[in-house]
Amino acid sequence: MQRMMLTLLLAFAVGLLLSRLLLPLLQRLKFGQNVYELAPQTHQKKQGTLTMGGLIIAGASIVAALAMCRYGAPLRENMLLAVLLMALGNLCIGFADDMTKIRRGKNGGLTPKQKMAAQALLAAAFSAYCYFHPQVGSSIRIPFTDAELDLGILYIPLMMFVIVGTTNSANLLDGLDGLLSSVSMVDFATLAVIAGAYGLGDLGVCCAALCGGCMAFLTCNAYPAKIFMGDTGSMFIGGAVVAAAMLLRQPLILVLIAFCMMISSLSDIIQISYFKATHGKRVFKMAPIHHHFELCGIHEAKIVMMYMVTTILLCVVALLGVL
Amino acid sequence: MQRMMLTLLLAFAVGLLLSRLLLPLLQRLKFGQNVYELAPQTHQKKQGTLTMGGLIIAGASIVAALAMCRYGAPLRENMLLAVLLMALGNLCIGFADDMTKIRRGKNGGLTPKQKMAAQALLAAAFSAYCYFHPQVGSSIRIPFTDAELDLGILYIPLMMFVIVGTTNSANLLDGLDGLLSSVSMVDFATLAVIAGAYGLGDLGVCCAALCGGCMAFLTCNAYPAKIFMGDTGSMFIGGAVVAAAMLLRQPLILVLIAFCMMISSLSDIIQISYFKATHGKRVFKMAPIHHHFELCGIHEAKIVMMYMVTTILLCVVALLGVL
Repeated sequence: MQRMMLTLLLAFAVGLLLSRLLLPLLQRLKFGQNVYELAPQTHQKKQGTLTMGGLIIAGASIVAALAMCRYGAPLRENMLLAVLLMALGNLCIGFADDMTKIRRGKNGGLTPKQKMAAQALLAAAFSAYCYFHPQVGSSIRIPFTDAELDLGILYIPLMMFVIVGTTNSANLLDGLDGLLSSVSMVDFATLAVIAGAYGLGDLGVCCAALCGGCMAFLTCNAYPAKIFMGDTGSMFIGGAVVAAAMLLRQPLILVLIAFCMMISSLSDIIQISYFKATHGKRVFKMAPIHHHFELCGIHEAKIVMMYMVTTILLCVVALLGVL
Repeated sequence: MQRMMLTLLLAFAVGLLLSRLLLPLLQRLKFGQNVYELAPQTHQKKQGTLTMGGLIIAGASIVAALAMCRYGAPLRENMLLAVLLMALGNLCIGFADDMTKIRRGKNGGLTPKQKMAAQALLAAAFSAYCYFHPQVGSSIRIPFTDAELDLGILYIPLMMFVIVGTTNSANLLDGLDGLLSSVSMVDFATLAVIAGAYGLGDLGVCCAALCGGCMAFLTCNAYPAKIFMGDTGSMFIGGAVVAAAMLLRQPLILVLIAFCMMISSLSDIIQISYFKATHGKRVFKMAPIHHHFELCGIHEAKIVMMYMVTTILLCVVALLGVL
């Protein structure tokens, strides 16, 4: 527990330092965000805000996690490294997407096919890793019970779906200043507590480092944001959250701790399906649902607080279910 | 730990319900805040925002704490009741202050002398209570060491100073939307964890209830605020924080967990002393220091996030020092 707390503080310090270094650099490189033309009107003033801030979160958490890791298990069974590599893989996909957007000067990004293929590949690799990991395997814990469910070989395709779903949901949630960073700060703290309680010290340290990184980033990303995390950051966070939950053999708690991410995807899916089915009618004023709240007249900063409070409550429920 | 988490959820639910009931009531009673004429210009638009929201925090945390209390110790040694009574005493002082302000239609309040006398009396009573409490007494723990410091009879005057200082500091910190509620949400969570680790279950439940109450209030108090907590709320929170820290025999950690409250007072004291000494010069653009940040052009919502992140970090440091 003590090592986790020190890791969090270290990650925050590194993150703060990195942000002081990276902000001027990104400014010089003119890595500004081109705001999606279909975003709410109020977002147009955000045109040109720096992006790729996810590099701050990634840098801070990787440095702190590696510095505080004890290298206990054989290297290929080390959960800390597994989470970081999975998150980094997703970061690369997000980074490529961000670069394409900046270059083209339009909010285009990678082609959906390229992105999907890279994600599926990464998801398959990580699912297989967990499947063969001696402390993970194909059976998952059921929260609120002592039962376990052995998925057998179905583990791999099901988890691929969970991974791709979670990372893309994290990506969708990253639409308001400080939204994903504050929500994931709470998520990582919760995952760290669970890992600590399960005796998985290195995994706990990794989650604590991610929490500290998000906190450092939040200081520049809170409304009004100086910098966005970009797909670089949201894919990194999504990858880390799902990887940690899988290594804890608790993928089902993602329904609680990643609830805010999930509703972003769900609202998108509902909106599009309904739109197609009714030939042009909408359920929400805009999807993902945080834009709907915005168009209902709720201030961006208040939506972020609401999401954070909701996440804290659901994380408390999750802790009740798994400890 | 489980009981604390359930208490937090219960307090949040009660708080949400109370806020739905109280908001229309306060509106009908026209309990609007008269904004202090000397506050930053941007605050003038807050004229008429409802006040006395502290009643939501108080109601929610009292109901939840009492419902989940185990009445373990003899009633007069029950720490949960002691914290609630101390907080309620302070709430009464704040409430009187709020009422005077609303009636007069100016930001006047109780006369400073009346307020000070009531606070000193309450502080003396609670200090004496702790002094004679078999599990508290006159010796305090020193964080980061195993040492204890026996203050003897000096405990009472010193703690009176700490109590009056903390409650007034909490009162001063309550100047931006969601500021005190988010900071104290973190504080109470930390105090609950410490109480749990010390085996003081009822005290932990009380702190968890206060945390849940603050979270519920935050949903209406976050920028842009629908309702302020008023002196009613800030005095209640200040009283509860200092009472819990004293019962844990850890008043020194207030320097960390109540840091944001302390700097509000300190900046006020520095500003006034410097102003008097130099016959009219100022150190800060405005005191307390959160108004200084505001006048430096930092958005209210960002200052709140900064204060919250700072509090989380300092609470982690505090946990390192006392667990």
